[in-house]
Amino acid sequence: MEHVTVLAGGVGGAKLAHGFALCQPEIHLTVIVNTGDDFDHFGLRICPDLDTVCYTLAGLANPHTGWGRKEETFEVLRLVGELGGPTWFRLGDKDLATHLERTRRLREGQRLSQVVESFCSRWGITARVLPMSDDPVRTMVHTLEYGWLGFQDYFVRCACQPAVKEFAFEGIEKALPAPGVLEALERSDLIVIAPSNPWVSIQPILSLKGVASLIQTKKVVAVSPIIQGQTIKGPAAKMYREMGIEPSALAVARQYQPYLWGFVIDELDRGLETTLKSSGIMILITQTIMHHEEDRLLLAKNILAFSKARKLEQQRREF
Amino acid sequence: MEHVTVLAGGVGGAKLAHGFALCQPEIHLTVIVNTGDDFDHFGLRICPDLDTVCYTLAGLANPHTGWGRKEETFEVLRLVGELGGPTWFRLGDKDLATHLERTRRLREGQRLSQVVESFCSRWGITARVLPMSDDPVRTMVHTLEYGWLGFQDYFVRCACQPAVKEFAFEGIEKALPAPGVLEALERSDLIVIAPSNPWVSIQPILSLKGVASLIQTKKVVAVSPIIQGQTIKGPAAKMYREMGIEPSALAVARQYQPYLWGFVIDELDRGLETTLKSSGIMILITQTIMHHEEDRLLLAKNILAFSKARKLEQQRREF
Repeated sequence: MEHVTVLAGGVGGAKLAHGFALCQPEIHLTVIVNTGDDFDHFGLRICPDLDTVCYTLAGLANPHTGWGRKEETFEVLRLVGELGGPTWFRLGDKDLATHLERTRRLREGQRLSQVVESFCSRWGITARVLPMSDDPVRTMVHTLEYGWLGFQDYFVRCACQPAVKEFAFEGIEKALPAPGVLEALERSDLIVIAPSNPWVSIQPILSLKGVASLIQTKKVVAVSPIIQGQTIKGPAAKMYREMGIEPSALAVARQYQPYLWGFVIDELDRGLETTLKSSGIMILITQTIMHHEEDRLLLAKNILAFSKARKLEQQRREF
Repeated sequence: MEHVTVLAGGVGGAKLAHGFALCQPEIHLTVIVNTGDDFDHFGLRICPDLDTVCYTLAGLANPHTGWGRKEETFEVLRLVGELGGPTWFRLGDKDLATHLERTRRLREGQRLSQVVESFCSRWGITARVLPMSDDPVRTMVHTLEYGWLGFQDYFVRCACQPAVKEFAFEGIEKALPAPGVLEALERSDLIVIAPSNPWVSIQPILSLKGVASLIQTKKVVAVSPIIQGQTIKGPAAKMYREMGIEPSALAVARQYQPYLWGFVIDELDRGLETTLKSSGIMILITQTIMHHEEDRLLLAKNILAFSKARKLEQQRREF
């Protein structure tokens, strides 16, 4: 059976992971999820990307927001607000149960990967979901206006408004890939970099000890999160601009070039085909915007078919 | 204005404190609350007696349970249960907001007494509510069946079923009375020991450095939590029996004797009057069972009137 591993951040990664999950049991799916966004709030450990991926795979996700659970209520947070507490991070009542029980288990000594495995089993998730690491990694955003900010401060509290200068992943040197991460990558017939934010969702995973060198030996396909210079959701395009790079699928391909066997761009970016092909990377042009559940499945199937293509030997070169 | 300080545990203490609160602004009220029951659960700091007292004073308490809030829901805990987490401690959604924001502030470096002051202000509580200490004190219960148990393990998880052998208040030697506690006691014209559990609600307060010696110099009135050998709520009578003492208002009076100016027993215990009077303690016989809000006010008023009585000089003696 074909082993597929998806590297994912939040909403875009969750949607594509779900598409591949719908291809089961014909494939064996592992999803490796960014934990650089994780943070402690009210004493609870919150793992936004892991929860978005798991809620999506379990059919529990809110289809409108890109975060949190469907049929959510906010009674606890409303009363926290009445006590003068912070309400900028929208903790729903259902969502809180996840954070409470995860925090309890972590304090009891369980590793994050064990907690995720148990939750996935409870939620009936058949794909294997792995946090990128059980060790703390904290994505920090260096901003023009406020200096270094924790990711959630930048992302939620400041609504991505500050201009970014650089990123750092605190703890990344000491962090080990979670149990199963390197094994899953090693075993993979196909590694898919989901249309997540390259700077803050995928880069932390690629920066983990052993990951980059391993995936350079494997068949890697990335899906561009940038379509016509814009993102469906999130600040990736804005970040490219602030880092002095014109946001486009080309910029994404350049960033991932050391790893890429193939690259997936949206039909709306068909004009980039010639330039991209000159790089020696295989190109799939298809609908990458996932409005509906069927779009997720179709994109996953298209990528699976694409990955079977014979590649002519061609020198990789700058483009 | 008369300064009244109430020493309180949970529900019985909360009700009588509420009675005195209804006597404001004619009196100046301070309530000193046991924190020996406090514990950490899901990474959150939970202060059961403080919350029961504050919810009661704020009119937010559940009138039926003796804990928690009225119009409570349990959505978060239901989902924690679905994840396989513990649900023996009944954390309601509204109640959780208190624990979250308290935990956040404590982690931010605020002292418990500051947090309580702020919450009381938000909840419109006019009495001054003080935790007995800002330092950790943990009531431990030595049981026949299971050895030493944390208080909530004994009280909630084991539903008070194990037989008790002794009690310990971990941290009590190092704990300091919270800011304002000794000052409030010093300034008090009347100190009322509420009808709370003498072993695990009042004893921790009395065991704090400086409290016992200070209140021996003051006018102290205790209300018996034991009526006709039984308690309205909680394991006090059972504890007396397991400690080899016949549970009765007499046993309570003996326990508090070093501090007592006066003692309040229920009309149902009128038969104990003669024995109690022989001890040299002033005795008030009145309705102490607080079914309704008016009962709380009436009991408080009766105690205030009682405390004005002239006491004949009489030798205190064993009884």
